[in-house]
Amino acid sequence: MRKCYEILNIIIMKLSKFLLFIAILVTTTGRTQVQNRIEIPDINGYKTLQCDFHIHTVFSDGLVWPTVRVDEAYRECLDAISITDHLEYRPHSKDIVASYNRSYEVAEPTAENEGIILIRGSEITRSMPPGHFNAIFLTDCDALVKDDWRASFAAAKRQNAFIFWNHPGWDAQQPDTTLWWKEHTEIYNNGWMNGIEVVNDDSYYPEAFQWALDKKLTILGNSDIHEPIQTIFDFNKGEHRPTTLVFAKERTAEAIRDALDNRRTVVFFKDFLIGEEQYLRPLFENSIEVTNIKKENNQVIVYFLNKTGLTFNLKKTAHDKNVVYFRDFEIKPHCRYSISIQFIGDNDGKVNFEVTNLLVKPGKGLECSYNLH
Amino acid sequence: MRKCYEILNIIIMKLSKFLLFIAILVTTTGRTQVQNRIEIPDINGYKTLQCDFHIHTVFSDGLVWPTVRVDEAYRECLDAISITDHLEYRPHSKDIVASYNRSYEVAEPTAENEGIILIRGSEITRSMPPGHFNAIFLTDCDALVKDDWRASFAAAKRQNAFIFWNHPGWDAQQPDTTLWWKEHTEIYNNGWMNGIEVVNDDSYYPEAFQWALDKKLTILGNSDIHEPIQTIFDFNKGEHRPTTLVFAKERTAEAIRDALDNRRTVVFFKDFLIGEEQYLRPLFENSIEVTNIKKENNQVIVYFLNKTGLTFNLKKTAHDKNVVYFRDFEIKPHCRYSISIQFIGDNDGKVNFEVTNLLVKPGKGLECSYNLH
Amino acid sequence: MRKCYEILNIIIMKLSKFLLFIAILVTTTGRTQVQNRIEIPDINGYKTLQCDFHIHTVFSDGLVWPTVRVDEAYRECLDAISITDHLEYRPHSKDIVASYNRSYEVAEPTAENEGIILIRGSEITRSMPPGHFNAIFLTDCDALVKDDWRASFAAAKRQNAFIFWNHPGWDAQQPDTTLWWKEHTEIYNNGWMNGIEVVNDDSYYPEAFQWALDKKLTILGNSDIHEPIQTIFDFNKGEHRPTTLVFAKERTAEAIRDALDNRRTVVFFKDFLIGEEQYLRPLFENSIEVTNIKKENNQVIVYFLNKTGLTFNLKKTAHDKNVVYFRDFEIKPHCRYSISIQFIGDNDGKVNFEVTNLLVKPGKGLECSYNLH
Amino acid sequence: MRKCYEILNIIIMKLSKFLLFIAILVTTTGRTQVQNRIEIPDINGYKTLQCDFHIHTVFSDGLVWPTVRVDEAYRECLDAISITDHLEYRPHSKDIVASYNRSYEVAEPTAENEGIILIRGSEITRSMPPGHFNAIFLTDCDALVKDDWRASFAAAKRQNAFIFWNHPGWDAQQPDTTLWWKEHTEIYNNGWMNGIEVVNDDSYYPEAFQWALDKKLTILGNSDIHEPIQTIFDFNKGEHRPTTLVFAKERTAEAIRDALDNRRTVVFFKDFLIGEEQYLRPLFENSIEVTNIKKENNQVIVYFLNKTGLTFNLKKTAHDKNVVYFRDFEIKPHCRYSISIQFIGDNDGKVNFEVTNLLVKPGKGLECSYNLH
Repeated sequence: MRKCYEILNIIIMKLSKFLLFIAILVTTTGRTQVQNRIEIPDINGYKTLQCDFHIHTVFSDGLVWPTVRVDEAYRECLDAISITDHLEYRPHSKDIVASYNRSYEVAEPTAENEGIILIRGSEITRSMPPGHFNAIFLTDCDALVKDDWRASFAAAKRQNAFIFWNHPGWDAQQPDTTLWWKEHTEIYNNGWMNGIEVVNDDSYYPEAFQWALDKKLTILGNSDIHEPIQTIFDFNKGEHRPTTLVFAKERTAEAIRDALDNRRTVVFFKDFLIGEEQYLRPLFENSIEVTNIKKENNQVIVYFLNKTGLTFNLKKTAHDKNVVYFRDFEIKPHCRYSISIQFIGDNDGKVNFEVTNLLVKPGKGLECSYNLH
Repeated sequence: MRKCYEILNIIIMKLSKFLLFIAILVTTTGRTQVQNRIEIPDINGYKTLQCDFHIHTVFSDGLVWPTVRVDEAYRECLDAISITDHLEYRPHSKDIVASYNRSYEVAEPTAENEGIILIRGSEITRSMPPGHFNAIFLTDCDALVKDDWRASFAAAKRQNAFIFWNHPGWDAQQPDTTLWWKEHTEIYNNGWMNGIEVVNDDSYYPEAFQWALDKKLTILGNSDIHEPIQTIFDFNKGEHRPTTLVFAKERTAEAIRDALDNRRTVVFFKDFLIGEEQYLRPLFENSIEVTNIKKENNQVIVYFLNKTGLTFNLKKTAHDKNVVYFRDFEIKPHCRYSISIQFIGDNDGKVNFEVTNLLVKPGKGLECSYNLH
Repeated sequence: MRKCYEILNIIIMKLSKFLLFIAILVTTTGRTQVQNRIEIPDINGYKTLQCDFHIHTVFSDGLVWPTVRVDEAYRECLDAISITDHLEYRPHSKDIVASYNRSYEVAEPTAENEGIILIRGSEITRSMPPGHFNAIFLTDCDALVKDDWRASFAAAKRQNAFIFWNHPGWDAQQPDTTLWWKEHTEIYNNGWMNGIEVVNDDSYYPEAFQWALDKKLTILGNSDIHEPIQTIFDFNKGEHRPTTLVFAKERTAEAIRDALDNRRTVVFFKDFLIGEEQYLRPLFENSIEVTNIKKENNQVIVYFLNKTGLTFNLKKTAHDKNVVYFRDFEIKPHCRYSISIQFIGDNDGKVNFEVTNLLVKPGKGLECSYNLH
Repeated sequence: MRKCYEILNIIIMKLSKFLLFIAILVTTTGRTQVQNRIEIPDINGYKTLQCDFHIHTVFSDGLVWPTVRVDEAYRECLDAISITDHLEYRPHSKDIVASYNRSYEVAEPTAENEGIILIRGSEITRSMPPGHFNAIFLTDCDALVKDDWRASFAAAKRQNAFIFWNHPGWDAQQPDTTLWWKEHTEIYNNGWMNGIEVVNDDSYYPEAFQWALDKKLTILGNSDIHEPIQTIFDFNKGEHRPTTLVFAKERTAEAIRDALDNRRTVVFFKDFLIGEEQYLRPLFENSIEVTNIKKENNQVIVYFLNKTGLTFNLKKTAHDKNVVYFRDFEIKPHCRYSISIQFIGDNDGKVNFEVTNLLVKPGKGLECSYNLH
């Protein structure tokens, strides 16, 4: 397990009076509870990177200085973040006057120092339609400030941005149902919608998940955090922010972009993994290590351990009545179990179950079947 | 026990498109773990208020928006805080341009809403001597901005400020020993030093405690917090920020000022209470409720409970050798105990101990003696 | 809020050598993390008592000494427990040889001391049918030891026991579905089944809930704990054991019996309350205190707080489309919120929602409707 | 970091009615919070094993079944334990009738299954003098049951036991001071005292530490746990039981015995390490990895990380006044820091400090000095 180390940087300089102002330069990470990285296996020859592409700071309506966002990512052992302050909504503008690039620029040295991949981004913040979109992998956020939202999208694309629809079912903009407006068709047809948030903050949008599957949009889940993150997530209780798992060739910004462009992502939200079966099946199978199988008479005992920080909820599905095993089985992180299966008379030897918290489409868990004969 | 309630204020407005910008007005408190107030008894006819008079925000070198400081106080069930941004040190000034009153003004509506007493203050931030001082109960922070530190102090006093010396033993300004400079004598003689921090952040300054006792300075202990507070204190582990306990006639700013002016304070730091015996003794005695005393033969069993969130470490002191009782005894918060004392032959019936974590002067705990005959 | 106090009873006796064996008499509660009681409101003129009627010790197949069960209840601030060791399953019998009354007798002095109501009980432990049943309010457990299960039930009834069916859907006895066997009809008709576990350990049995409603059985939810309880529930994460909430005239064993006989119970399981609407509605309404209602133009803002340790998940149901409010709303323990409702043009002024975690029957939450005109 | 895995062994057998009693065979480990091993470095070519040689169960005056002790060790990732039930004190004997070997025998299969080294032991439990002693590495506990304590010691030695004095300063036997009685001289001279507990439960005995150094006794620190361990230690707060760190050639019982015989141990108690400098110095130095040293002008910045679960409290000692650095510095587990040192004019380039929580003798921390020129 990769350990996440804290940089205290207590620069203690006390030579003499003229050093006063340097003396009070204490960096931002401070002493703190260090988190462990949530272990998630690599799959299909790719590294599994834990990313959050939707984050705010005081430079729009967030409540912390940009460096805090990097420190938070560092303590949670994330690989990459994008600070995406609102372009059209800056309630602190009476006191904070700055380029839209500043939250990136302020955070960048800390990201460099702490080894966090920081991706420049902005949130295009419009009424519905089309609602809010994040443009990431930008080179100049200021260029996106336009009266017309179409002009903002076009400016983002000129910078070769990756653009995704944020919280498509946000009840402040979609009161009762999650609708796809004609403007979204226009955006989609223009190539301006590369991905979609299936999870934002504490909400999961099954309609968006179905759209992502049907329209080949990249699946994303992000925190949209405004407050100090410990205010929202109680890490001591095992909570974690929603993240986009990115299956990348290496741990670089370029490899993340390549993975996003090729839809190699899964959303990690509470205990759920949400995405395509081609990623969820190896995530499940690479998490479990079978350590022993004991066969005796008409019983098989399977010993295994969960090597990861993921949880798996198994539910028995249609099965030969002469194969007798659990109804439900919860596999907790980093735990070891044994399961006993009884075989009576003639039977097909198959244990069938659904992993109900690994969603391959809305309402449908990953189907598994193993032959124990 | 007073419960601390969280205000979520999820103002959900979604009438129509023209409400867009209102719609994203989500207030700052968010969903979060609510803390319980640390119970500390009232004493001597006064209410015991929990206060922190030294706090920073993005308006100087802190890392959070001012409203976050009020929310933090609210969750920790503090009674009063003072945001005291540096006057002479503003490393975010490239992006933040504002009056020195702004952190107070920005935080004030939240304080009003959440019932936190917010006291206007500033930190006069100078090289040593004289070092850093907080001026609180100000009416206009801007008036303190002066080249000459004496002019700053004078301006503060013209507003009838309460002024105290911050972290007098800070190693960035006092490398090896905690010194009282001639400038401090000048400040003191001018009536410009009303109190002194005996505790700042994670440091306790015994020299400052002795000075406070000798020179009749008000004893203070504050957090000097710059980061989001959960980064520094792990509330889940029972940690708390250092606070100044103020014994006030009522829960108002005026009553706090009256208490500060009359030196009715104690510092609460980790498990320590630091202050004068006239406050520590009733804090100890009001915390403990003796529920039963059983006398049988030559044994007395005392049953008692600790009604508070305080800890008390008892250490046996000189005693009649025919009175046999504990060597050390730890009384934890909200716990119930019984202590058995044996009497052999002739004896004075006295149990003598020191409460080693209630400091009545540097290195000296509160002496207690109870006659059980 | 009632605080739960720990009794340490560190009986320190050290007079002389002849006191040796007394000297090592240290009682069982020890120093420990004290829990707060989960606050749940009283309703309908009754006290709401938190009870667990299914618990094991080393005297059957449990792993702790009986006094530990009382201490656990004490730390969790339960009101009543019943230790119900198996009659027919005693895997420790090679080493432990005792009357079936012993776990009660061993625990009773600690219960008396700590103020926990301890109810004598046993678990009748048979293969399916009829499976396992608890008989509580016994006077002599030994009298239930019989070869024939019918004789055990009859013996329990002769002692005027309250009898309930344990974990009716336990997959070790009911592999694929939760069945009601003809033997259960016989037991029911004999008056030998007074209640039924709708929740046992980490399982909820919706079929049992429906049977309880249809057949007028008392609804119970219990822990069936075998291990030290902290092994199973992480109190630090806010977890709690499943309990039976009993609405009793007073906090006595007799009043609990009266409530059980009259079916005045609700199950508290994870975030769920499971029971009849006549109890769930006042539990919800007594938990919420509306502190303010602001009406302005076509908006109403309702300010309220949750005074309890319960959680409520609200989900909007069918409503006038001109009344615009949340889709979903989570009310967390001891938190304060405001909800904004918009009224457009003509409307019925009604906010309709279901409290989805307050189950009035299987799969059906509590329906609520409030008129805000 | 070695992960500690939980074995649930939910043996789910539900073939048919005749399997009833097997069906309720659920093993003892249960679902639970898995702890991480506290990382402590290997030193001097030895493996550092974490051991607890003083533990009780229901077979004497403990409160849990012996298998629970193994599960606890497993969750805490200990390497070895010894269950040492009292020979002369068995308050549960009315219900539990068994050989003194039973707690070992009952626990042994679980230890085998979970990979915990289980060492057979007993506590010789006498009034003072000589007080309580543990004999471990026994082959038959029953043979130690003798009226005369000298006979018990002799019987233990005939089995080649390793014997150590328990809690020599226990106030129940040594009310005011920790005394060495003439009987201890006799025991020592007979070769019957191989080690001594310097720490027991929550007490540290500096006198015992000095005796261990002077008389070449093996230094031990153990929990003496009676209750379920989570009742005493709040692992969520980072607490840990006291352990004896054993520097062994390999992770076997034999290698542990060899290390004990050769006094290769250190006590780990709260944040303290207590033992000989030859072990404490490499424990400190192997814990810290210096990652970078920047020299510029007259400043050196040292970047380092603490790779372990240990804490180090540094305190500046006598130093050249022209070398300016911290007064105190706390190095927390798994954290990364930088320290800045200023050099003025001529100086010796040495940073001197004491690691105050690594005790090389009573009241004396480990002295360190590093030359940064």
